[in-house]
Amino acid sequence: MTTTLVPGNSLITASPEEGRALAIKMARLIIKATQPDDAVRSRLRDVYANDAVMLIQVGQVVATEFATIAAANHYWRPG
Amino acid sequence: MTTTLVPGNSLITASPEEGRALAIKMARLIIKATQPDDAVRSRLRDVYANDAVMLIQVGQVVATEFATIAAANHYWRPG
Amino acid sequence: MTTTLVPGNSLITASPEEGRALAIKMARLIIKATQPDDAVRSRLRDVYANDAVMLIQVGQVVATEFATIAAANHYWRPG
Amino acid sequence: MTTTLVPGNSLITASPEEGRALAIKMARLIIKATQPDDAVRSRLRDVYANDAVMLIQVGQVVATEFATIAAANHYWRPG
Amino acid sequence: MTTTLVPGNSLITASPEEGRALAIKMARLIIKATQPDDAVRSRLRDVYANDAVMLIQVGQVVATEFATIAAANHYWRPG
Amino acid sequence: MTTTLVPGNSLITASPEEGRALAIKMARLIIKATQPDDAVRSRLRDVYANDAVMLIQVGQVVATEFATIAAANHYWRPG
Repeated sequence: MTTTLVPGNSLITASPEEGRALAIKMARLIIKATQPDDAVRSRLRDVYANDAVMLIQVGQVVATEFATIAAANHYWRPG
Repeated sequence: MTTTLVPGNSLITASPEEGRALAIKMARLIIKATQPDDAVRSRLRDVYANDAVMLIQVGQVVATEFATIAAANHYWRPG
Repeated sequence: MTTTLVPGNSLITASPEEGRALAIKMARLIIKATQPDDAVRSRLRDVYANDAVMLIQVGQVVATEFATIAAANHYWRPG
Repeated sequence: MTTTLVPGNSLITASPEEGRALAIKMARLIIKATQPDDAVRSRLRDVYANDAVMLIQVGQVVATEFATIAAANHYWRPG
Repeated sequence: MTTTLVPGNSLITASPEEGRALAIKMARLIIKATQPDDAVRSRLRDVYANDAVMLIQVGQVVATEFATIAAANHYWRPG
Repeated sequence: MTTTLVPGNSLITASPEEGRALAIKMARLIIKATQPDDAVRSRLRDVYANDAVMLIQVGQVVATEFATIAAANHYWRPG
């Protein structure tokens, strides 16, 4: 199955670091699903990467995605 | 029963990828319920698909819907 | 008992579709409690139904209400 | 004990309707703690009760408070 | 140990009222960690205490902190 | 393994104070991943550290990250 919204089609990762990377990717793939044009997205990315408010808002989205991924992985608690 | 807010009238999906697609649809159906006029919605969609702040906010809504869907599916954890 | 904030005074619904409809109603009833004047509310509704940012924010509120309702109903998981 | 932030110093309520009312009160009491001047608060209340964006944001805060209160009450599920 | 982010270095409180007060303090201490200059913070506090949008946003942050504290205390449910 | 998103590659901390510090670091590392240029980030930091709205939004992001970390640590409840 080809996935376009969740890389690997799974929320399970080996570590918090990988969970965090997945959260960033999932957040970006929603933006891609909403605005599929690569050129437009690239231009908008320049906008938000240089704007303090938007950088903070990106942080909010990633924090929300990560909360779900962390719960899926039982917070990677030591066994 | 005809559903207009939750496709299939269920939060249960086969995979994270399908759960993510459901989250996007559910977010859009709330916008449709709030603004039923197709022409207005189409115009507003052009607005937010080309605005960095709004694209990030769409991401926030989808992340919130997905958190609920993921919990409903026990995060699709392997057996 | 007359309720003005939670229709039926219960979070339990028969299906996700009905849970979603309840989330929309509960969100609107908070706006009504904050701004009881029907004419003002009607005017403001025209504003947000035609503004992309506000439509997305309405989606965020409904997503948050729905998360609570879905948990209350054990996500309507099949028995 | 005099309480100024949580009426009755408890999150437990008899019904969803009362839980919702508590959520509204708790949200207002945080605003009061941040801006204790009654005259200023009254003026600001006129502002947000007549602004579509702010009404939606009030809805977001109440939805967040209610999520906590609903969990505290096991969602008032029938016994 | 000197703490600068969590008074008493614990999320456990005797009551909802004290939990709410802790949520307010924790929210303020993050602002202090981000902007350590007392004079700047005092000036900014005058700004947000007199702005309707910002007062509502402060309420959102406190509601989020309180959700965590309430869960930590099992919602102070009667025994 | 070198980590760039989660210091120590773990959500487990000895105390709420350390959990709070981790939440701040994780929030900053997402901003760094989105805007890797140190000079740009430093300039933007001056912007948000002196703006009331943005300081509150930073507080919101940290509160969201902390909710996840606190759950991972069973809220550091006494044994």
